Parts: sequence; C-alpha cells; structure tokens
Amino acid sequence: MSGDLPGVKLDEQLLGRQLYDCVADLYPICRSITGDGVRETLSHLKQIVPLTVSEVPSGTAAFDWVVPNEWNIRDAYVKNAQGERVIDFHDSSLHVLNYSRPIGETMSLAELRPHLFTLPDKPDWVPYRTSYYAENWGFCLSQNRLDALPEEEYEVCIDSSLGPGALTYGELLIPGESAEEVLISCHICHPSLANDNLSGVAVAAYAARYLQSRSTRYSYRFLFIPATIGSLVWLSRNESSVSRIRHGLVLACLGDSGPLTYKRSRRGNAMIDRVAAHILKQRDDCELFDFSPYGYDERQYCSPGFDLPVGRLSRTPHGRFPEYHTSADNLDFVKPVQLAGSLLACLEIFEALEQERVYLNQKPKGEPKLSKYGLYDSIGGGTDSPAFRMALLWVLNLSDGRHGLLDIAERSGLDFQEVALAADALCAKGLLKEM
Amino acid sequence: MSGDLPGVKLDEQLLGRQLYDCVADLYPICRSITGDGVRETLSHLKQIVPLTVSEVPSGTAAFDWVVPNEWNIRDAYVKNAQGERVIDFHDSSLHVLNYSRPIGETMSLAELRPHLFTLPDKPDWVPYRTSYYAENWGFCLSQNRLDALPEEEYEVCIDSSLGPGALTYGELLIPGESAEEVLISCHICHPSLANDNLSGVAVAAYAARYLQSRSTRYSYRFLFIPATIGSLVWLSRNESSVSRIRHGLVLACLGDSGPLTYKRSRRGNAMIDRVAAHILKQRDDCELFDFSPYGYDERQYCSPGFDLPVGRLSRTPHGRFPEYHTSADNLDFVKPVQLAGSLLACLEIFEALEQERVYLNQKPKGEPKLSKYGLYDSIGGGTDSPAFRMALLWVLNLSDGRHGLLDIAERSGLDFQEVALAADALCAKGLLKEM
Amino acid sequence: MSGDLPGVKLDEQLLGRQLYDCVADLYPICRSITGDGVRETLSHLKQIVPLTVSEVPSGTAAFDWVVPNEWNIRDAYVKNAQGERVIDFHDSSLHVLNYSRPIGETMSLAELRPHLFTLPDKPDWVPYRTSYYAENWGFCLSQNRLDALPEEEYEVCIDSSLGPGALTYGELLIPGESAEEVLISCHICHPSLANDNLSGVAVAAYAARYLQSRSTRYSYRFLFIPATIGSLVWLSRNESSVSRIRHGLVLACLGDSGPLTYKRSRRGNAMIDRVAAHILKQRDDCELFDFSPYGYDERQYCSPGFDLPVGRLSRTPHGRFPEYHTSADNLDFVKPVQLAGSLLACLEIFEALEQERVYLNQKPKGEPKLSKYGLYDSIGGGTDSPAFRMALLWVLNLSDGRHGLLDIAERSGLDFQEVALAADALCAKGLLKEM
Repeated sequence: MSGDLPGVKLDEQLLGRQLYDCVADLYPICRSITGDGVRETLSHLKQIVPLTVSEVPSGTAAFDWVVPNEWNIRDAYVKNAQGERVIDFHDSSLHVLNYSRPIGETMSLAELRPHLFTLPDKPDWVPYRTSYYAENWGFCLSQNRLDALPEEEYEVCIDSSLGPGALTYGELLIPGESAEEVLISCHICHPSLANDNLSGVAVAAYAARYLQSRSTRYSYRFLFIPATIGSLVWLSRNESSVSRIRHGLVLACLGDSGPLTYKRSRRGNAMIDRVAAHILKQRDDCELFDFSPYGYDERQYCSPGFDLPVGRLSRTPHGRFPEYHTSADNLDFVKPVQLAGSLLACLEIFEALEQERVYLNQKPKGEPKLSKYGLYDSIGGGTDSPAFRMALLWVLNLSDGRHGLLDIAERSGLDFQEVALAADALCAKGLLKEM
Repeated sequence: MSGDLPGVKLDEQLLGRQLYDCVADLYPICRSITGDGVRETLSHLKQIVPLTVSEVPSGTAAFDWVVPNEWNIRDAYVKNAQGERVIDFHDSSLHVLNYSRPIGETMSLAELRPHLFTLPDKPDWVPYRTSYYAENWGFCLSQNRLDALPEEEYEVCIDSSLGPGALTYGELLIPGESAEEVLISCHICHPSLANDNLSGVAVAAYAARYLQSRSTRYSYRFLFIPATIGSLVWLSRNESSVSRIRHGLVLACLGDSGPLTYKRSRRGNAMIDRVAAHILKQRDDCELFDFSPYGYDERQYCSPGFDLPVGRLSRTPHGRFPEYHTSADNLDFVKPVQLAGSLLACLEIFEALEQERVYLNQKPKGEPKLSKYGLYDSIGGGTDSPAFRMALLWVLNLSDGRHGLLDIAERSGLDFQEVALAADALCAKGLLKEM
Repeated sequence: MSGDLPGVKLDEQLLGRQLYDCVADLYPICRSITGDGVRETLSHLKQIVPLTVSEVPSGTAAFDWVVPNEWNIRDAYVKNAQGERVIDFHDSSLHVLNYSRPIGETMSLAELRPHLFTLPDKPDWVPYRTSYYAENWGFCLSQNRLDALPEEEYEVCIDSSLGPGALTYGELLIPGESAEEVLISCHICHPSLANDNLSGVAVAAYAARYLQSRSTRYSYRFLFIPATIGSLVWLSRNESSVSRIRHGLVLACLGDSGPLTYKRSRRGNAMIDRVAAHILKQRDDCELFDFSPYGYDERQYCSPGFDLPVGRLSRTPHGRFPEYHTSADNLDFVKPVQLAGSLLACLEIFEALEQERVYLNQKPKGEPKLSKYGLYDSIGGGTDSPAFRMALLWVLNLSDGRHGLLDIAERSGLDFQEVALAADALCAKGLLKEM
C-alpha cells in the first residue's frame, strides 16, 4: 500500500454508485440487535466481502450485560373496523416498535394510543423507537396518520417472536505484514434508516474490499455488529487480543450532505486522532470533536477498561440532523457522491497509517547536496512542485529519530502525502533510512 | 458537607442583611495594624464566631520585619481661630493620618499644609493615608474643605499614643476529619472603609459560622489579621505547620457592584485555582487573574519560601475602583446582595474542595448496564436532567484512577455539582469506589 | 557588559551613517562564493574589525559537499555590430551570470538568447543569477534592454577564470569570561545587492566593533562567510567545538524599510528564541516566524546533526520583497535609520543574553522590608518608576532557583532591562544572589 489510492483515480462515480446500491439493497430489511434481519444483512454483505458470521447464544454474559432473547418478526399491523391496514409493517420496518412482543387483540383507539409513537413536530415523519430490554409492544406512525384515525375498534397484530436464540455479527480480518490491527466497526442493527447506519455499513464493506486488493503493513479487522451489545460481546470474546489494536475507526452516518467530521478517541492525541485530523483538514470543510462518552460503539471501545485508540468518522453526527432516527433518514437523504467521499477519506486515513513511520537522515550534518542525487536537478527541471522541494528539506531536517512523517506534515503544514513521497525519494537515494 | 448548600436555600436575602449589618457595625471603628481598634473589631466578630485572640508584643521579629509600637488614638482635630473643629477625627476615622504621632500645637495654615492630604481630582472625597513605619503626623480632608480654610492660625491636636504594646489578631480553627487545612485570611487593619475590607471580614466571619454547622473533611483555619505584618507574624509563629495548608483564599473587596474575580496563586494551577475558576465561570460574569506579587496577604503566603496554594477572591480588585482608599468606600458602596453572592461563591468553592476526589469505576470494561441499577430507568422517567445522564457517563468513563471530579467537570463542561451528584449515585450502586 | 547600551545613547544617527557607508563601500565589489571579490570585501571589513581570514583549498570535502573551483572575473560584455558594449559588467556586477565560465565568441542574438536572463514582470530591473555547481555562462539584463537589441551579430566576452584556488572566509572571536560562545554569522557571497546581504555584513561588523569595547560574559564568534558552502566548510572544520555555541544569530536583510523579524531556531524555544522574541516584542511592530529548513545559513546550523540554537534576525525576509535578488536591491533600498535600528536590536539581544541568569532570593519567607534597604524610600521619592517597583517584587517572588530573569520578564510582562535593573539593585543590597 503505497503511492496513491488506485480506487480514487479509477472511478469515484463508480464507487458512489456501488456504495449507494449497497445502501438501497439493505434498506428494506427489518434489522434489530438480533434476529434474521441481521443474518440477511450479513448475507448480502458477503456478496461484497467474505465475512465470518458468529452466533452468540441468548443468555451469554458480556461484562455487565447479557445477550437478550432473539427477536424476529413476520408481520405487524393495525386494522380498522373496515379491515383495512391503517398501520402496516410491510410499508416500513419502522412502523413496529423494535423488539415488540407478539400481540393479537382488538381494542379501542384509547386503549391503543399509549402504544402509538409519533413526532408531533414533524407530522409527516415516522419515528424509530426500540424497547430492547423492557418488554413492550407498539407502533410508530406519522402524527398526520394518527390524527386521521377515528375512534373505533382496531385489530392489533404483531406476529413477532422473542425467545432464546442468538446475537449475530459479521467479522473480517484482512491480514497484513504485522499482527498489529486497525479496527473498523459499524453498527448493523438499525432497520430502514439509510444514513444511520447503512451508509457506515456500505463504506466499511467497500473499504474492506479495497484493502483486500492491496498488501498492507497492518492487519485490518472489520466488525459488522449490533450497537452496544454487539461491541460488548465482541470485546468480551476477544479481551485477550484487543491489545493488538493500534488504531480504530467507528464508521457511522457517512452519506448525508454535511462535511466530514471526526470524533477523537478518549486518548485525544492517539495516532488515529492526529492522522484523521490531518486528512480531514485538507478538505475545505470539516469539523473535529473531542471524545465524549455518548455516541456509537466508541463508547465501549473507549471505556476506561479498554481505552482503545478508536475514533469515529461521520458526516453530520447523530442527533444533529432532524432526520435522525426517523423515516426521513431514507434513500433520498444519502448521496452517492457523499458516500464515495467518505470512503476515500477513510482510505486516505488508512494510507497515512500505513506510511507513517520514523526515518533517520543518513547525512544529518548540514544539508546533503541534493543535486548529486538528482533531487535538485529534477527541481530545476520544474517537474517537481515547490511543495515537493520543501518536503525534501523538511523530511531531511526533522528525520532525527524523534519525528515521524505525521510530525513533519503537521509542523511543515504540508500534506502528509507530499511528505511521504519525499521520504520515498530520499530513501531511494540512501539519504534516509527507516529506523 | 455534601449535597447542596443549606445556607443558599435557606435565605440569601437574610444572609445579605446579616453581612451588611456586620459591615455597618464595624464601620465606625478606627482600626490600624495595631491597637484597640483591632481589639474592638475582634470583639464584635466574636458575637458571630468564637475567635482566639493573640497578642504579639512590639519588637517581636517576623522574618525581615519587627512588630512595631502599638498605636492608639482618642481624639484628633484642627480648630480654627474661632475654636471650631474644621477637621474632626470624630466625623471619620479617615481624617487622621493613620499611625500619627501625638501633637498639640498652634500653627499657620502654611505650616500645617505639608501635613494635610487631599484628593484634588475628587474634591469631595477624603483620602486614606498611613505612615506605619516612618514617624509622622497628618490629617486627611477633602480638597473642598481645604480650599475653604482661610489663612489663619490653627490649633492642631492629635491625642494619640505610640509605644510598646502588641499586635493583635484573631484566629479560628474549625477541625475537620483531616488535619489538612483550608486557610481563609482577611485583613482587618483598615479603618472606616467598607469594601476594603469590612466586606472580606464579614464574608469570612459568616463563612466560618456556616462551616461550624457542618461536618467537613478538611479543617478550616480563619485568620483576621492586619495586612502584611499580620500575615508575616502569623507565618513566622506557625512556620512548622504551614505544610498542612492544602488550599487557601484571601478574602478582600467583596461587597462592591462588580462581578466576582479570582486571582490565582503563585502556583497558577493549584487545586484552589482550578476550583475557583470552575465555580466562577458558572456565573454570567467573572474575571480570572494570574498571580502577581502585588495585592493583599497573598503576597506573603505566596512568597517563594512558602509558595502556599492561596488565591484571592474579590469583586473589583483593589486600585481598580476610584473609591479605593477614600471616604467614598463607605456603607453606600457595598450592597447586601453582593456580599451574599460573595459568601455563596466562597461556600461553593469549599463545597467543591470537600467533594473533590478520585474514584475508580468498578465496571471499567464497556459501560455498565445502567438500567440494572435504576440509573437508566430513572432517566427514562424524565426526573433526571440530561446533564445528570451525561454526568453518569462521564464519571464512569474518566474514573480510571487518573481523573478527579474536577478533571471530569472541566473536560465534560458540566458543572462540578452535577458531576459530584452523579458520582454519589454511582457510589451508592457500587459502580464507583473512592480510591 | 551591563546597564545600558553606550552605543545607543551616544549617537544612533552616527551609527546609521557608519553602517550605510560600510554598505556603500562594499556595494560595487563583485563577490561570489569564492574569489578575489570575497578577499577584497574582507579587506575592507578589516578596517572596522580585525578578522582572521581563512583560505580553504578547492577540493576540500565538507560533509556531503566539496569546495568548488575558485572563480574570478575581470571583464564581461556583449558588444553590438558597432562595437558598443550593450551589456557591460563594469556597469554592474549583476550583469554576469555568477560563476560563468570564460567565453569569447561572436554569435547571433538567437544563439545568445538562451544565455540571457531577464525579469519580464519588472522590465527595468536586472536579475541576479548564479550557476555555482553546473558549468554555464550567461548575462543578466533588463527586459527593456533585451527588447531593444536588434537581430544582429554580437561579440560575447567573459574574461573569467574557474580553476583550483580556495574558498575564503573571515572570522573573529571576541573572548569573554567564559568559553561559551554566541555565534553571529552573515553571508558575504552576494555581489552588488545592498540589503541581501551587505546590510547583514555591516551590522555584524559594527556589532563586533561594539563588543570589542566591552567586557562580556560570553565569547562572541563572528563569521563572514559565503552562504551554504561557507557554513558547511566552517562547521566541518570546527565540528569538535560547536558544542561551545550556546546561542546564535544569522544576520541578513537588515536595511530595508520593514519591521524587524525573527526566525526561530529549529529548537523553537531556545534561549536565543525567547530573548529575541522578548526584545522584538517591545517594538511597535515585529514579526516572529517558526523555523523552516529554507532560508540562509540557519539551514546548516540547524541541520539535525548539529541542531544549534541559531535563529535569524532580519527585516523583511528573503523572497518577501519584490526587489529580492534584483538590481533594485540597491543603495536606495537600504536606509541608515533601519540599519542602526537593526544593530541596536542585535546589541539588545546580546545584552539580555549577557544579563540572563538565575538568582536566589536570600529572604524568601515573606517579602523583605524594602524600606530597610532604601528600596522603598527611594520608591516613595518618586524617582523610580512604577515598573521598577513591580520589577523588585517580581524578581523577589520568582527568584526561587527555578526562574531566570527572562522567565520573570515574560511572566510579569515587564521589559527585560527593567527586571535586570531590579535584580542588580537587589543584589547590591544582598537580598539576591546569583545561583
């Protein structure tokens, strides 16, 4: 993995279409933290990358938590007196309160009402609600739909099952030269929500596919897991080997129109934090956030007992866009060009992690006479950029064994890629050696 | 000392009145760095809190200084040819140059003039002047009064005494669980000046009274002392035990209309500096100053041979208000509401010092399942604030043995009190233990 | 070296004239990195200060470099068909491509053109071009002059020699109490360019003359050297003793109308960096730059194998003024008042380096009673400034063995000179001792 990103040059538009198709493909499936929706999702993803699927039985302990009963659903509806489905699970997987227990009853609107969830401020949108750990049942619908329901008897049916089964997750390890790992984690438990988090799932799948085509220094481990309980289960099953994780990214909300954002790991200045900040700052627009113990699975990876160097790459963070956790987070809300841009940023971050290292200037006393090595003549020839010329001088000046390429990029204000190219050129001439 | 501040909730208006009454009560007394004015002042304060009064003989050495002769004054005036008192000590204790030697003579205005002090820029105000260590005599008066004096003979009388006696100060130790001390120091040597420093004296007295009603972790030591020589004397008599002082505050100028200000200790980032900054920043308006070796007794506590973690809580700092050291620093210049606000800030600072500690998350791997402990259900119930929910997560995430509650408050941006409440709740459930 | 700068008080106008005369005197000489122009320049400078001149034979290795053949030139011209010199070296040393090999031919304008260098954007100016290490020949002229040349045959003559000889540089060591050195380096290789770098050469020469008249704590080493190869040669010949260099300044571009600027050493916070920043900040206008491995001989001194604490004092940095490396960098471009201001800043920096040290307060417990030592009475007398009073308190407070005078100046916001005066006064009274 060196030089540039072939994928970038090949076809950004194609990448955007592939990512969007992946999102669209997975969108209709009703996912939850357990159940067949997750299995079907992983099955689709296997068409992109080879995943190992794990099944962890209900009742398995994971630190302070226990894998819950598995939930599956076949149908759910509310029928009016005329027998018409006024709320229908088959219209959208959001219509059912996620993890609803089965029910089949007839009741008045007054009796039904406590089980109906709406968004009065957004009367056209259907909210996304869950009740994983407190047994309940319910329906989500738009406020307008609710307002239109007359006071009459309704047939209420949720054809779900909730019982011993398993929690399912997908995993892929792409081995590199070293056993040191980069962890990429995305949550796959949300039903028909496009940005949160089919965008993250698609970017992770295609990042994995890209990395499979390269030889890398690090090993890359991808996790496609239900949020919270999934990362807890994975951590509890892999506790002894998490020390291999040198860098990590949670991928979530990567398809909306906002600029890229990065949330730092708990450590705040881990290499992944510095690399992600450097790569994102090269864009016109980006935002960096300090760690907070709220969000996605970075909460678990960055819990104090693990404190892994795992940050989060997103566009608009969860909760900062009104469409968050509603039916408006649909296939119109994510854009191919944004998905492709997210993937490329992700790959640029990996590229910088791959190339980052500490070199030692082999002629540290004074500047070497670059023209002797064809590194100044080439300059005079005008084919090299002024940035490359400066990068040569910076790399020579700071390669004293105490500064890595990222340090040099940060201090010089040059792009990491320019600095890495200069280091390659100097290595080729024997002026620089890896420490 | 835990939870909230009973005094705060009980009656802020009542506190304001009590503090103001204390200032008004002490205002007429002619104080100096020694003498009966100090004794009378301490006597009044004993009605609020039980003070131990120390008498240190004139001539006693205190480092590079020596306790001076004691000064007392009964009367002082300038009479015109008609025998009318044109300057009268009984009108205001400011009229006499503090520490004036006795005199009784008749002289021309020309002879008198070098001994008269005015403020030409503030022609209605009487300045406050002292001459502790160079024997002198004089009167302070308004420029307008001086301008009205005709050229004639004046009878000049200062019925003072200056001779061996003692320096007097008051002290109160409120023992806590630990022998570690919080030092609170205020200067009591200024005569009829309300803000500088009867405001500080009153706040100190009522802070002591409040602390006497609580059980505390720290011991609290209050000093009511003459400025400079008083702190030097106290330090020289207690040199071997100053290492017990963990935190300290000089209280001065706490009654004017300005916002609260805090001057950092010489150390700059002592716990008292961080706590005071945190508490003050919760107000709409406040100002923080770095240490400088000019000001009140923090100069002595923060001299390099002691370098105690003692900052200063004030409103408008000395010298920044035009009324400073003039007759305009009178009972109109200080406000009950400002005095009460200063006392409350002071108590909040003590409260945070009391509660500050380092806890250890007992379930550091992943997040604990808060609903198991009633800490998530209660959230759902809506009675707890979003800030409290975030505080629970922050305390769990950062309680790794390297972060105290103040660290957590600073990093999370939450109020210390919210963080401390979350820590209490987590301790109660066994999820957190004090280190 | 203590107290103030005699030179400053004596006559700043005189200094400006002397510096300007020195620049004007050296301006016509055709200098290069080797040759008689350098020898003649050093010869002139010897009238100001006694220099040791070193001759380093061509072929001598200096790290990755080799001393090139020596270049000398007697005449160079292009004559038109009428035998008139249309380009004449005797008009300006810039007209010949520096280091041109000899040539004597007749050729058409088309054949000549690839050897002519102009500045199309500045059609009246003649550029400065060199070709030290790639054998070539050429002429520099204004675009207007070139445009006026008809297509005809031209006689081209460069009467130069390029062969084994020596590289010449001047050096002066002014011994101080200590063998620790301050290095001052300026490049003397540029031909008729006034600001770059006769300004630096003149300032260095007069700084040396000033220091010769003082007794100093540090030894001061002045280098008058050709850029790059000169500093490399000097470093390679003095490698074992560079560790004596405690502080250093490269002097360049010190006569233009811009404000003073300082470029930090590679270390970034070396004493010279802090002192220069402090001295420059006392001016209305100044600019500070971080180190970059581009510029003048600081590139070599700050190469990672040496990493010497050497910064650069300039006015407008190279490349930031349009006259840079053109005939417009002439005697009109530099001003006596600017040269004098640069010299004074330089001397103030040396003064602060001389005075900087760590003192120990001899009465660290509480403040000493300054009036006992005549340091408070004098205050009362009004002859001392409020800044001096504050400086006394700051020096006492921070002289705990961990803060030097510069630390105290930086923290207090007072001028270094004020702080040094206070330290002197306190030493004189035994209140302070050098550590």
